[in-house]
Amino acid sequence: MTEQLTVVGTRVTRIDAMEKVTGLGLYAPDLEVQGMVHGLTLRSPHPHARVVSVDGSRAEKLPGFRGLVKASEVPRVCGTWFNLRSRKELTKLFQQDDKVRFIGDPVLVVAADDEETAREAISLIDVEYQVLPAVFDPFEAVVSTDVKIHDRGNVGFHIVKEYGDSDAGFAEAEVIQEHRYVTSKQKHASLEPCGTCIAEWGREGSLTLWSTTQVPHWTQMYLSLAMGIPIAKVRVIRPHVGGAFGARAGVIWGLELMCAALAKEAGHPVKMEFTREEDFSATESRHPFTVDYRVGAKRDGTLVAADARIVIDVGGYGTHYVSVLADALGTGVGIYRIPNYRFEGTCVYTNKSLGGAFRGYGNPQMNFAQESALDELAEKLGIDPVEMRLKNYRGAGELDPVFEVPVKSDGMRGCLQDGASAMDWQVRRAASREQKAEGTLRRGVGMAAHQHGTGARFGLPDPSSAVIRINADGSVHLLTACADDGQGNRTVLAQIAAEVLGVPFEWISVSDTDTAIAPLDGGTHGSRQTYCGGTAVLKAATEARESIMKLAAEYLERSQEGLTLTGGNIADVDTGESLVGLGDLMRHYQVGDFSRCHEVIAHASGVTEDQPPVFGATFAEVEVDVETGQVRVIKMVGAFDVGKAINPAQCEGQISGGLTMGVGYALTEGLVIEDGKVLNPGYRDYKIPRAIDAPEVVSVLVESIEPTGPFGAKGLGEATMISSAAAIANAVHDAVGARIRELTITPEKILRALKETAQ
Amino acid sequence: MTEQLTVVGTRVTRIDAMEKVTGLGLYAPDLEVQGMVHGLTLRSPHPHARVVSVDGSRAEKLPGFRGLVKASEVPRVCGTWFNLRSRKELTKLFQQDDKVRFIGDPVLVVAADDEETAREAISLIDVEYQVLPAVFDPFEAVVSTDVKIHDRGNVGFHIVKEYGDSDAGFAEAEVIQEHRYVTSKQKHASLEPCGTCIAEWGREGSLTLWSTTQVPHWTQMYLSLAMGIPIAKVRVIRPHVGGAFGARAGVIWGLELMCAALAKEAGHPVKMEFTREEDFSATESRHPFTVDYRVGAKRDGTLVAADARIVIDVGGYGTHYVSVLADALGTGVGIYRIPNYRFEGTCVYTNKSLGGAFRGYGNPQMNFAQESALDELAEKLGIDPVEMRLKNYRGAGELDPVFEVPVKSDGMRGCLQDGASAMDWQVRRAASREQKAEGTLRRGVGMAAHQHGTGARFGLPDPSSAVIRINADGSVHLLTACADDGQGNRTVLAQIAAEVLGVPFEWISVSDTDTAIAPLDGGTHGSRQTYCGGTAVLKAATEARESIMKLAAEYLERSQEGLTLTGGNIADVDTGESLVGLGDLMRHYQVGDFSRCHEVIAHASGVTEDQPPVFGATFAEVEVDVETGQVRVIKMVGAFDVGKAINPAQCEGQISGGLTMGVGYALTEGLVIEDGKVLNPGYRDYKIPRAIDAPEVVSVLVESIEPTGPFGAKGLGEATMISSAAAIANAVHDAVGARIRELTITPEKILRALKETAQ
Repeated sequence: MTEQLTVVGTRVTRIDAMEKVTGLGLYAPDLEVQGMVHGLTLRSPHPHARVVSVDGSRAEKLPGFRGLVKASEVPRVCGTWFNLRSRKELTKLFQQDDKVRFIGDPVLVVAADDEETAREAISLIDVEYQVLPAVFDPFEAVVSTDVKIHDRGNVGFHIVKEYGDSDAGFAEAEVIQEHRYVTSKQKHASLEPCGTCIAEWGREGSLTLWSTTQVPHWTQMYLSLAMGIPIAKVRVIRPHVGGAFGARAGVIWGLELMCAALAKEAGHPVKMEFTREEDFSATESRHPFTVDYRVGAKRDGTLVAADARIVIDVGGYGTHYVSVLADALGTGVGIYRIPNYRFEGTCVYTNKSLGGAFRGYGNPQMNFAQESALDELAEKLGIDPVEMRLKNYRGAGELDPVFEVPVKSDGMRGCLQDGASAMDWQVRRAASREQKAEGTLRRGVGMAAHQHGTGARFGLPDPSSAVIRINADGSVHLLTACADDGQGNRTVLAQIAAEVLGVPFEWISVSDTDTAIAPLDGGTHGSRQTYCGGTAVLKAATEARESIMKLAAEYLERSQEGLTLTGGNIADVDTGESLVGLGDLMRHYQVGDFSRCHEVIAHASGVTEDQPPVFGATFAEVEVDVETGQVRVIKMVGAFDVGKAINPAQCEGQISGGLTMGVGYALTEGLVIEDGKVLNPGYRDYKIPRAIDAPEVVSVLVESIEPTGPFGAKGLGEATMISSAAAIANAVHDAVGARIRELTITPEKILRALKETAQ
Repeated sequence: MTEQLTVVGTRVTRIDAMEKVTGLGLYAPDLEVQGMVHGLTLRSPHPHARVVSVDGSRAEKLPGFRGLVKASEVPRVCGTWFNLRSRKELTKLFQQDDKVRFIGDPVLVVAADDEETAREAISLIDVEYQVLPAVFDPFEAVVSTDVKIHDRGNVGFHIVKEYGDSDAGFAEAEVIQEHRYVTSKQKHASLEPCGTCIAEWGREGSLTLWSTTQVPHWTQMYLSLAMGIPIAKVRVIRPHVGGAFGARAGVIWGLELMCAALAKEAGHPVKMEFTREEDFSATESRHPFTVDYRVGAKRDGTLVAADARIVIDVGGYGTHYVSVLADALGTGVGIYRIPNYRFEGTCVYTNKSLGGAFRGYGNPQMNFAQESALDELAEKLGIDPVEMRLKNYRGAGELDPVFEVPVKSDGMRGCLQDGASAMDWQVRRAASREQKAEGTLRRGVGMAAHQHGTGARFGLPDPSSAVIRINADGSVHLLTACADDGQGNRTVLAQIAAEVLGVPFEWISVSDTDTAIAPLDGGTHGSRQTYCGGTAVLKAATEARESIMKLAAEYLERSQEGLTLTGGNIADVDTGESLVGLGDLMRHYQVGDFSRCHEVIAHASGVTEDQPPVFGATFAEVEVDVETGQVRVIKMVGAFDVGKAINPAQCEGQISGGLTMGVGYALTEGLVIEDGKVLNPGYRDYKIPRAIDAPEVVSVLVESIEPTGPFGAKGLGEATMISSAAAIANAVHDAVGARIRELTITPEKILRALKETAQ
């Protein structure tokens, strides 16, 4: 390893910047495959029904009609890659039947030569439904006797965990804080609509899928199982993707598998492209949580007990809900030194669109409850919220009780202190307390903290692999299936490879995200690529470097110890004198010496040692109009312990995006559903922060140097939005004294709360 | 390694059969890339000229015009991958100037939105030429003082090699045979016209080229050098190819590099597609040889001396000519135990289309001379031609004097004896001697032998690499850049992988031929893929198997020695009882055990130990019409020492194709050029054997088991056509007594020879 970092830690331009800003790069909706036809979905108008019959005879007569596949003919992925782990688990991955469970649930897909014909075909198909009673409220669903959404009932999963003795803990507590906190059904709302793919059956009996999936290899395995062909015959290619945030952490509801089946039926490649309305009303969203949270402390602020009772509204199907709940458990119980913690979670089906993976994965919901409650508790105790966190968080060497793994890199103190400093916390906090009741605008500051695991090592299969090939000019092929959703993780992997190999950054070419090219990878989720993918790249590059140095020693007839590789040259380790260019060396062994013609290839595959927590603290300054209830977020400070910032510019990009998404989560973002119908399926009615709504963002990067991470790095992506909602809610309370415990924080709720406070 | 072969040696269906027979598979002319425009070439009407100026101003004004690039702005590849071996050699790879050297030599290329506009643009471009004197005959070119095709003169290369003492040898000889033999300028005449590619500048500043090249990695390096970008930024993708035969053993004249430069200029992907006329008149063809050959023997048939003086008509440019000459040397000198051999070769430029690589690569030309001469000598000596070869060929343990490598697997005796037997040689030979002069038809049989090296190990860089990835269901990704021109070599590599790994053949998925996917490979030429590519696959698969067995032992808690892998199962080596499926084992380690999540990946890269000779004997029975001079080839027997037939059906396919190509080479195939103009640039006038012209073909596979080859295999592809022309010429002589020493063997030449014989 080089001692002086030259690429890692620098703000190199991301490798795909040019093609993205020039419009040259192709995203899934831009793609065309020769001979392709168009697929379209017929969706259920009923929240709950059985499909009795489908009559496609009139559609089939349309010129240009290419095929029809019923949803009941294709397995639905109702689990995660956890279910890939064994034959037994595999049986739980899919669900296939003739029911529809929410308005918009796919009934069938048709293919036709063009979209117009497909649309006409859809209009000519007669579907007979047996309409079933529906339930939309999870608390009703739990007790309902006349609505049975799934054969096994409406409760998908239930768990109680107790660490320590919560009753005894609360008995010890001197102050107890207890409330119900409710979160919204947030949609990922990525720039690129969620739901485009192309499926082609072709080369050597294989299936090729152009998909925006974040997890190409798991998608490959899903397709292999669903279509009954070997994994080796399925190829998943990821084009550029305009934002994912978990929405693509698997296959998209009703998309890839249906498209593959339809392409087979049609005998043509099929492209399917969901509209924004289909995206918002019929694909995965964030699970809404109702958290009854109780927390007890000593007068000095020492936390002694907590009790969280969570009901998750899963929607019609249950992808990811078990692991989302597990993440709420791990992060909720893990962050503070609460010796007695009771945790109960219930996942309930309702006849609404399904929940799925979403940035933070259960943590933002849990964090909103816990960090709001902690703010309330700190106020009761008269302790500064920052002090409250500093006093109680689990730091270096401490064991998290869920996974029982010690914290190895602890940046929480840095996040809390540096973040507070960047917000000028003491001054602003005092200022909000002292502001006069003049005009209608009131300012306040709030904060919240979080931790979030990097990767999924302790809960899900989490492989990363990398192959490095050194070319005859010293340039490098890095083969990785890392899916870049726009965050720039492929650039980070290239930086790690360049740093380890000792070559200029420009010499690295990162492969397309394509299962035919790149080795097994767990995908892009869980803030894992820098840490997990980076570890694989580091190992493969280290092995490649070792092979290079052996050849260099032989070529130069010098001892390997006396040589180094830097700037693309083999140099004398003492004098720094360049002895031979890497290109010349590689050319010699690949091409020049006919008795060798040997290419340096190295690979690594496996998991990381750990799942280290990314600590973070979010600070928000808000301005509330007490007359209108309108909240404006003025400034946010996001202080995050990234371990090591491989590319500080990209970290800042994540923070800027994550905090802004947090503003949306806090204030405006949530699907409005009435009788199972989504009333705001698009940007006209579903409001995400516009540029003008975005606060001033200050990024604080804390580098705790994680010993198990590549160059000390941990993750970042998800962490950046987790504690935003609580920080903003706490700031609103600081500004006007109104405590909003239900997301989103609408003007109506503020006005109502102000009214109640005034009474 | 498994002891009982289950996949190797069987006639598995080739992996691309279905898509090829159904028309689903795409060939280069079928391909479309989004946003592509069309490129067209303006070609020189002069055989020799300097391009003084180009005025494209009228063309540029055409709507839809996209760009113009002059040939003088782009390097031409005038060497082979030999020139990639060092910085010094690199300087000899390219040539760039403002001259044109044959009719059809590219002057410039234009791009336009469609072909019509491109054609119109071409018609609007004014080119001013300074016409130079031209020379078309190589013997004139050697002595010409007023025509200087290249700055360094008209002789591109000249070599004299002497093994032993030829003067002394001839002094010893009791019989001497001496004549001039001349071969034609054969065109590859593949089903798919030679000259389609698409170049796209795109993803992350890289160049992607869809090319029919046989040598993707060398093409990648050529492009990298010519375009001044790192190798890692060049991607070469090979679609299906409908025949190559050497025509694509590099870049095609005026195609890939021009197309890449044009795409850059146009700012769009560019597709270029040569017409059949452009293919025949302006791309590479087989070098015509004039061989003055003298051979001396003892009365008992023992060869004692030979002298070959070869003049090669290189055409306007010299790709491959040095190595073609070297191959004529190696195979000519190597095959027989001639202790005294003088070899002189001269490569001469003429103002005709250029010579290039072509199946056999110098050997068919040399073989026609040597094997015709040997037939004449045998006749003089009254020795049976088969006996003559048996007596003199170099067999097991003998050193070839050029490379000084011993023969390790000797199938020549088998080829000669089994081939003779399949032809019923003695009986037919006697019959032709005894036939009566009734009617106009006479039958005769002839034979010739050859050897041909496998791969290019001793003359050119010759790497092969393979990567094996085992999927979670036990299916296998085999990554190889092996280019399949239609011979089925990717199928053979899959067979080797399946055999070594102990999995069903259907579990293997062979990667696309794509430099972004597959590791370094020397390409498909020199009959090398089964032997060289197969060796890399064997090594990688062996390494993968070892990794699998280690995991199996751990998983089953048994010793590795007690386990085997067969039929996709880990089994008890003694009882054969299946203990765990490979899929279940791999799933466990990849997905099931969260602490591992390890993918088995293995790779191999390097060269083979040897370049073993493929021995062969071709037997032909012909019927000659003494009135018309028409020759019909009735039957051919091809006996070839393949080492081990990995897939006998594919070997037979090669033999069938190669012998038929040999019939064309003997009888009809040659470009007719007058004053530098090709008079037969297409199938109307250039005659290849049609189905009705093809003889009955009998394939004889001799398995000598090459110790350095995978499962004993050597090569085959080129060998199948090498000795056809001599065998047919010898059969013609046997039938009617006419000795034709100049290809092609036309009716005119036969009638003339019969007239001379009659006088």
